[in-house]
Amino acid sequence: MGDPEPGAESSAQLPWYRETAGECAFFEAAWQQGLPLLLKGPTGCGKTRFVAHMAARLGRPLFTVACHDDLTAADLTGRYLLSGGDTQWVDGPLTRAVREGGICYLDEVVEARKDVTVVLHPLTDDRRVLPLERTGEILQAPPEFMLVVSYNPGYQHVLKSLKPSTRQRFAALSFDFPPPEVETEIVAAESGLSKDLCAGLINLARRIRELKGKDLEEGVSTRLLVYCASLVAGGMAMETAARATLIQPLSDDGDVIAALEELLSHSF
Amino acid sequence: MGDPEPGAESSAQLPWYRETAGECAFFEAAWQQGLPLLLKGPTGCGKTRFVAHMAARLGRPLFTVACHDDLTAADLTGRYLLSGGDTQWVDGPLTRAVREGGICYLDEVVEARKDVTVVLHPLTDDRRVLPLERTGEILQAPPEFMLVVSYNPGYQHVLKSLKPSTRQRFAALSFDFPPPEVETEIVAAESGLSKDLCAGLINLARRIRELKGKDLEEGVSTRLLVYCASLVAGGMAMETAARATLIQPLSDDGDVIAALEELLSHSF
Amino acid sequence: MGDPEPGAESSAQLPWYRETAGECAFFEAAWQQGLPLLLKGPTGCGKTRFVAHMAARLGRPLFTVACHDDLTAADLTGRYLLSGGDTQWVDGPLTRAVREGGICYLDEVVEARKDVTVVLHPLTDDRRVLPLERTGEILQAPPEFMLVVSYNPGYQHVLKSLKPSTRQRFAALSFDFPPPEVETEIVAAESGLSKDLCAGLINLARRIRELKGKDLEEGVSTRLLVYCASLVAGGMAMETAARATLIQPLSDDGDVIAALEELLSHSF
Amino acid sequence: MGDPEPGAESSAQLPWYRETAGECAFFEAAWQQGLPLLLKGPTGCGKTRFVAHMAARLGRPLFTVACHDDLTAADLTGRYLLSGGDTQWVDGPLTRAVREGGICYLDEVVEARKDVTVVLHPLTDDRRVLPLERTGEILQAPPEFMLVVSYNPGYQHVLKSLKPSTRQRFAALSFDFPPPEVETEIVAAESGLSKDLCAGLINLARRIRELKGKDLEEGVSTRLLVYCASLVAGGMAMETAARATLIQPLSDDGDVIAALEELLSHSF
Amino acid sequence: MGDPEPGAESSAQLPWYRETAGECAFFEAAWQQGLPLLLKGPTGCGKTRFVAHMAARLGRPLFTVACHDDLTAADLTGRYLLSGGDTQWVDGPLTRAVREGGICYLDEVVEARKDVTVVLHPLTDDRRVLPLERTGEILQAPPEFMLVVSYNPGYQHVLKSLKPSTRQRFAALSFDFPPPEVETEIVAAESGLSKDLCAGLINLARRIRELKGKDLEEGVSTRLLVYCASLVAGGMAMETAARATLIQPLSDDGDVIAALEELLSHSF
Amino acid sequence: MGDPEPGAESSAQLPWYRETAGECAFFEAAWQQGLPLLLKGPTGCGKTRFVAHMAARLGRPLFTVACHDDLTAADLTGRYLLSGGDTQWVDGPLTRAVREGGICYLDEVVEARKDVTVVLHPLTDDRRVLPLERTGEILQAPPEFMLVVSYNPGYQHVLKSLKPSTRQRFAALSFDFPPPEVETEIVAAESGLSKDLCAGLINLARRIRELKGKDLEEGVSTRLLVYCASLVAGGMAMETAARATLIQPLSDDGDVIAALEELLSHSF
Repeated sequence: MGDPEPGAESSAQLPWYRETAGECAFFEAAWQQGLPLLLKGPTGCGKTRFVAHMAARLGRPLFTVACHDDLTAADLTGRYLLSGGDTQWVDGPLTRAVREGGICYLDEVVEARKDVTVVLHPLTDDRRVLPLERTGEILQAPPEFMLVVSYNPGYQHVLKSLKPSTRQRFAALSFDFPPPEVETEIVAAESGLSKDLCAGLINLARRIRELKGKDLEEGVSTRLLVYCASLVAGGMAMETAARATLIQPLSDDGDVIAALEELLSHSF
Repeated sequence: MGDPEPGAESSAQLPWYRETAGECAFFEAAWQQGLPLLLKGPTGCGKTRFVAHMAARLGRPLFTVACHDDLTAADLTGRYLLSGGDTQWVDGPLTRAVREGGICYLDEVVEARKDVTVVLHPLTDDRRVLPLERTGEILQAPPEFMLVVSYNPGYQHVLKSLKPSTRQRFAALSFDFPPPEVETEIVAAESGLSKDLCAGLINLARRIRELKGKDLEEGVSTRLLVYCASLVAGGMAMETAARATLIQPLSDDGDVIAALEELLSHSF
Repeated sequence: MGDPEPGAESSAQLPWYRETAGECAFFEAAWQQGLPLLLKGPTGCGKTRFVAHMAARLGRPLFTVACHDDLTAADLTGRYLLSGGDTQWVDGPLTRAVREGGICYLDEVVEARKDVTVVLHPLTDDRRVLPLERTGEILQAPPEFMLVVSYNPGYQHVLKSLKPSTRQRFAALSFDFPPPEVETEIVAAESGLSKDLCAGLINLARRIRELKGKDLEEGVSTRLLVYCASLVAGGMAMETAARATLIQPLSDDGDVIAALEELLSHSF
Repeated sequence: MGDPEPGAESSAQLPWYRETAGECAFFEAAWQQGLPLLLKGPTGCGKTRFVAHMAARLGRPLFTVACHDDLTAADLTGRYLLSGGDTQWVDGPLTRAVREGGICYLDEVVEARKDVTVVLHPLTDDRRVLPLERTGEILQAPPEFMLVVSYNPGYQHVLKSLKPSTRQRFAALSFDFPPPEVETEIVAAESGLSKDLCAGLINLARRIRELKGKDLEEGVSTRLLVYCASLVAGGMAMETAARATLIQPLSDDGDVIAALEELLSHSF
Repeated sequence: MGDPEPGAESSAQLPWYRETAGECAFFEAAWQQGLPLLLKGPTGCGKTRFVAHMAARLGRPLFTVACHDDLTAADLTGRYLLSGGDTQWVDGPLTRAVREGGICYLDEVVEARKDVTVVLHPLTDDRRVLPLERTGEILQAPPEFMLVVSYNPGYQHVLKSLKPSTRQRFAALSFDFPPPEVETEIVAAESGLSKDLCAGLINLARRIRELKGKDLEEGVSTRLLVYCASLVAGGMAMETAARATLIQPLSDDGDVIAALEELLSHSF
Repeated sequence: MGDPEPGAESSAQLPWYRETAGECAFFEAAWQQGLPLLLKGPTGCGKTRFVAHMAARLGRPLFTVACHDDLTAADLTGRYLLSGGDTQWVDGPLTRAVREGGICYLDEVVEARKDVTVVLHPLTDDRRVLPLERTGEILQAPPEFMLVVSYNPGYQHVLKSLKPSTRQRFAALSFDFPPPEVETEIVAAESGLSKDLCAGLINLARRIRELKGKDLEEGVSTRLLVYCASLVAGGMAMETAARATLIQPLSDDGDVIAALEELLSHSF
């Protein structure tokens, strides 16, 4: 297949990804068997990067959608727009992925509105079709098409969760933060900071993550570690950078911030 | 009747279905008497496949709709679309089923919005009509038309249920997972994995299903067993495949997952 | 008056109805006095059939609307539709009934949205007018026009009920299931099954209805008895037919279903 | 002023009204002083008839709106409608009343949506203007214009009530059912039934109304008494007519209905 | 500046206003400094009149909006309307006030929807701009422009209040009913009734206002006193007028009304 | 880069800003590293001014949006408007900031609706893209583009907060009111009042702020101090100005206002 149409994310160069537990092989097997995939794991641990990496590795265009409370089926499938007094159908990202045999990635899928299920169900059973009711089309997904969804099981969603009738349509992988050596390697590669300094950051991150579920809703992400390392690599003092990237984004509670400052003061 | 119009699901080849309790004969009798049918049963036990099988067997086009919170009557009956400055009526799947003498299958009908009842009621009493208020038509359903709805009584729908005045318009069948020998046969036929290995999977599934209502909202579906068997048939290790298809899709709770891993470790 | 326009339900042939308590005479007197009528009673006891019978007997076209949560005044009165760049008014069923001197029957009127009252009030006092605000018309209802509404007082509608200011605009009749001999006659006439077998069904129905308010939200309807008798008349075993029409449609609770099965096993 | 435009309710003939406490003189004084008027009182006690009577007596066109949950300011003031590709403004009933110097009567005003206050406030202070924001007009109400609103203080509106800032813009009259002799006269005049029989009905009504606030949400209205008397005047038995007009419309509770039947059995 | 455009309220003649505590000088100073102003005080104590007076005194056109639950930013700023197949922008009252250097008065601003803050914030800090996102304009408010908002702190708004980030953008004045001598003067001037009779009314009003917070949600307003005095000046008996203007508008509670009647009976 | 297009806020002259803790250097470093920035702090402490200052210092056009309950993604990205029968896309402020390499500042971002996250997420990870689904474009943000958001952690938002998956995409700075000497300097510079008088005001403000969390939801802002000083510089008595700017805007509670008056009476 040629270049993806404008609108698809470029997958020409392979995004750097560090595998930790055979997830690349599993993704490829699920793609070959035509199985939809569910990724579970905390914020900023690399799920989005993993999907981008696999899309490039498999040579498929990638369509990513960050789901939210108001995302409807039409946002995924497409809608009619007025043009010159007439209406013209414009494909949504899911429809484009089906037509082009690409990978559609719905990030935090539990946030989407419920009418999204109407398009996911026929795509995730043996029919593998996408009905476009407004146009009367029923698209047959090609073998190259794959649907990937993700969510963070660490949140407490009283009202929001995937119904079993939806969940049980996906094979599922559980993600977590990488082991320290791997995370050190990742942060150093992304920021250009020395591995030694990065190792100190990862050590601090591990101690912060132990507070999750006690004082913190969520531990510090790999992404924030890269932020911090980038600012230090750009000349900022470690403490200034860490305060703005590893402490202030995590909490607004004075006591929690004081505890994190305490951790920081013993770290470097 | 000739080929169904584009938009109907093809029913040219008979989808494989393994009958367990005379449900095929009952479906045919209800169809002959012009009675609407309600299917009750857990996720992924084969209700959708059963309807597809019967539609093909009776030579009727099938129109399937996965219901959801925002599904309205207009999504079923049709709506006007702007075209060249004028408006043009486009039939919805229910209207098409009535016009073509097909079978309309509303999956998880309790999820639909309440205005759906306005179209179901006159179709499910002795009038058997579909009023299209926007066009002023009142369609008389031909004898070949049949309405089938389903839902999963295992969910706790505090706010969502079929009103008695709607329920009592349907004959009803209760579905459950097939007996072990039958389910083994089904999984082997769908995945290409040997019956021996499939029997082990079905055995594991039965032990998982015993946890339903205790630790699990829903037991593992036949569909997930087919996923697992397909990955193993494609060369994946049993444990890797089972973890991703029979454990991770069922729960996000650490203790529950540990219990399922324990079951898995004693299974193969 | 000539044939009703297409869109009205045909009332050319008199639908069969078995009177039980002088309700036909009362309906005719209310119609002659120009009084709106409220029918109260359980699901499937024959209210809709009664109205169809009376409309035919009085030679009036009938317009039936099954009300629901999202039914608005515009669904009853009409709306403008785009046509060729211009807008064209299309009468709703209530407007048509007023224009044609017909009978408008709003089934389960408590389910409708509150703006429906704006059109019912001026039609149900001494003005007997239907204001169409969008077109600027105020239609004077002819003497032949009659408004009939119904609801099921057995439901618990915490938020939904007719306001006294609306209720007190209607004369009201209370319906219940017919006496056994009459119901036997009805089921035999509708299904073609012998009166003897029907009498057994009615006996079972009476024992099921005694559970209403205890285990069942609603007793079994005459309609379901007709379903059962039709399947048996078509050759199905009594127990199979009764399970699918008199038990499964009533409940999803395992204990309740077992109790109903017990009743069934002692019935034939 | 000439004939009201089509759309206004005809006030050519004076509707019969029996004054009980100087309310006609008060209405006329308020109209002369340009004061808006609030009528409080139970369902069916004659508020609507009173306004119709006064409008005819003062020779003003009357515009009545039954308010409800979804009534918006645009329903009162008007809106643009598409016509021949262009939009055309269509006045609502309040705007028409202002333009034509008529009386606008908003029945059960507390049911209307809150944006209605935006048009009532400038009409009910010393400005007496109606701003039409969509057209950019600010209409000055002529001296003949009068705004009348009503509601039933007997209901329990937890969420719905007139804000003091709105209430305190109206002079207010409290209505109740007329005294027995007057009500007898009214019912006889409206139904054609003899005063003797009517007096028995009024006597029964008084005993029913004593149950209000105990078993009944609202006592029986004068309107229902007229219904009953009309049916009896048309030949129906008193007990049959009273059951359908004075008992069944008031309650669905078996015990309450039995108590009312008891009252009825001792009345004639 | 010339005459205001049609749509602005005429401020040609100076509305009569009786100053009580230097509020006129404060308003003028705030206007000169370009500060937005918040008026707090009970219903009908003269806030609206005060703003009208000051607008006329400063020679600025006045745009008043009564806020409510459904008032949106577009109601204030303007919107596109279809006209001849094209869309045309129509300024809302706030935009007009900015363009014409007028005074925009938002009465009961806490009732408006939250998107109103998006237009108030940039107008109430040092930028003094009104961004019209739909047209792409950013209007710079001229020095003559002033924003005035009001609300009644006596209400209990659990869900509705001005956020501190909005409140702290306004200078604020607290209003109350005028002292007895001043209120007597006001009522006499507005109604034409003698000061002696007015003094008796003001005396009654003071005793009624003492019940606020105990039996009454809000004390009687100056506006209602003017209503009463006008009816008496027009020939109505004092007791009749007072009952309809000072008692019935305040409460629907029988006990409270009896207490007010008691106060009334001792007053004249 | 040349002049910003009309619609962007002019940043030609450098707005005066008094740095207190190295925040200017941090902002510039984050901008150079392409990191999005979150500002936390109380109302009116200078966050908006800080962003305006930095935008001017870096020579970037600034696009400020005050977020609210109803702000949607389309308000930020743009929408189609009808024009001459055709639709034309109009960029929203975020899209303009991306296209022009400017700074987009979302004030009180937690107030925005959840679909805003769909546009923020891809802009705040390594992709730095803005997908415009309606036009099919995916804009690559240039290095000069920066996203800044703010909120006030002092409010109690039970339902509103940034999800960790969003928070952890930002570096964060915590703001508070400036130290007394600095705030004195700011107020004097903005109002033209002498530093001596301003110092008295700042002293009063500090004592008022100590009541925050006890009697006051929020302490007095620097902005209100400037209001007060401006009125005094314009000739108003200190007590009159302070009452209207430092007391009345803070509370409607009589006891709290009395306490503030007490503080005021001891201050000058």
